[in-house]
Amino acid sequence: MAAGGWPDCVQSLKGVILDMCGVLYDSGEGDGVAIPGSVEAVKRLKASNLQLRFCTNETQASREKFVAKLQRLGFDISVCEVFSPAPAAVSVLKHRGLRPHLLVHDGLLPEFDGVDKTNPNCVIIGDAAENFSYQNLNDAFRVLIGLEKPVLFSLGQGRYYKETDGLKLDVGVYMKALEYACDLEAEVIGKPSAAFFNSVLSDMGIQPQEALMIGDDLVNDVGGAQRCGMKGVQVRTGKYRPSDEKHPTVTADGTVDDLARAVDTILNQRGQ
Amino acid sequence: MAAGGWPDCVQSLKGVILDMCGVLYDSGEGDGVAIPGSVEAVKRLKASNLQLRFCTNETQASREKFVAKLQRLGFDISVCEVFSPAPAAVSVLKHRGLRPHLLVHDGLLPEFDGVDKTNPNCVIIGDAAENFSYQNLNDAFRVLIGLEKPVLFSLGQGRYYKETDGLKLDVGVYMKALEYACDLEAEVIGKPSAAFFNSVLSDMGIQPQEALMIGDDLVNDVGGAQRCGMKGVQVRTGKYRPSDEKHPTVTADGTVDDLARAVDTILNQRGQ
Repeated sequence: MAAGGWPDCVQSLKGVILDMCGVLYDSGEGDGVAIPGSVEAVKRLKASNLQLRFCTNETQASREKFVAKLQRLGFDISVCEVFSPAPAAVSVLKHRGLRPHLLVHDGLLPEFDGVDKTNPNCVIIGDAAENFSYQNLNDAFRVLIGLEKPVLFSLGQGRYYKETDGLKLDVGVYMKALEYACDLEAEVIGKPSAAFFNSVLSDMGIQPQEALMIGDDLVNDVGGAQRCGMKGVQVRTGKYRPSDEKHPTVTADGTVDDLARAVDTILNQRGQ
Repeated sequence: MAAGGWPDCVQSLKGVILDMCGVLYDSGEGDGVAIPGSVEAVKRLKASNLQLRFCTNETQASREKFVAKLQRLGFDISVCEVFSPAPAAVSVLKHRGLRPHLLVHDGLLPEFDGVDKTNPNCVIIGDAAENFSYQNLNDAFRVLIGLEKPVLFSLGQGRYYKETDGLKLDVGVYMKALEYACDLEAEVIGKPSAAFFNSVLSDMGIQPQEALMIGDDLVNDVGGAQRCGMKGVQVRTGKYRPSDEKHPTVTADGTVDDLARAVDTILNQRGQ
């Protein structure tokens, strides 16, 4: 490992950002299950002198409901520590004076409660799952094609994810569909967008080189963080595949078996 | 107009290929309506010494049902004169020993009656309309992602089309979605694929420079034909837009108000 790489880099760290699904827990029936050792690992990080934030592209539930689920799984996490695309989108809408047509999961709607949705001048898509019907996609398309300057926001750009009953198409697939239909490029809100990572760094008040991202998604977690100047470590849980360790364009600063091992290494290296 | 361009080029023509929807008729309630003068124009072409074929990306009905509709609208057309993507796909499947998983309109299924669909090793998508549900798209995706060498055929690559109740997303949009999900490139069967146009030329036994394509779709009809070495003329009916006449990459050899005017010019120029 080169100097300044993992695990040497942890000496100069001031903050850690954790991906959630596939790092803290595996989704599935009901709340899913905590990944062994991860509840304890979060506890140990919180007791250290490192700042800690959580960063997810989850868009099937409001942050409140999502955090409540994590708490039921045993994690000591509060809403203000969690960064997800919907609140970031609400902030972008306010800043730019945009009124959205929403094609999202029913569970995400509460995040947009206070937002003016009359006479929409942009479209927001999230992981809408069953709501991605032909009719709903046509409706979103017609809003876009009717705008002089169509604006499409996509809450993440994932290809697919795994649930207990099999692989499911993710929001990125429908983003590509609408991009082609309207001949435009969507603005991605969430990982791996630099604006999204930077908002987390800004909340911690630290520089990119002082932060480490730990995730199971090589491209969106690790690669996205690295492009912002952070270090990125991949865990061999969640959607990790052995082929990630010889990926053509993204090389993690380190690869560890799970979050517990990552936290062991970080705290040992720092003598905590 | 340059020498060899429209309408001079019609002197050396041996065959004409007509697009159907937007050139012969406009779709809508029931059978739709014939475009004024087009029934007579087809009759005049048939009485000339030019060969005539019809070429459509229609994939919501079998050729038999589609041709029956055109006959009800008054057109003298028979099934063997019509080239559409589904029969071309069946021929590709046989040639390459492939068994399809179908994501198509119910009306298109009879075209694939004799085709082995057990244990599929490729996916075919057509303009499935309401059949483009989240569940059905997931099913097609899972077949592809489970194959060692995933093969996706798309019956056309249109972005959208107009029906009486508004714009509707076309098959190309879902092609892009599955391409992104599986990180592959689909093989397009139908216009503007060169293989598709060449099969029509081959059926007429003529060379590309002896053929003229007349269509309302600048990119898929006119541009596709031109890339094969044919001449391409656009009609100002169907999905024609004035902006087509200053398109950045495709310039029609000629633009005429409708099929009747095109046929007037062709036959006058040839002294027929």
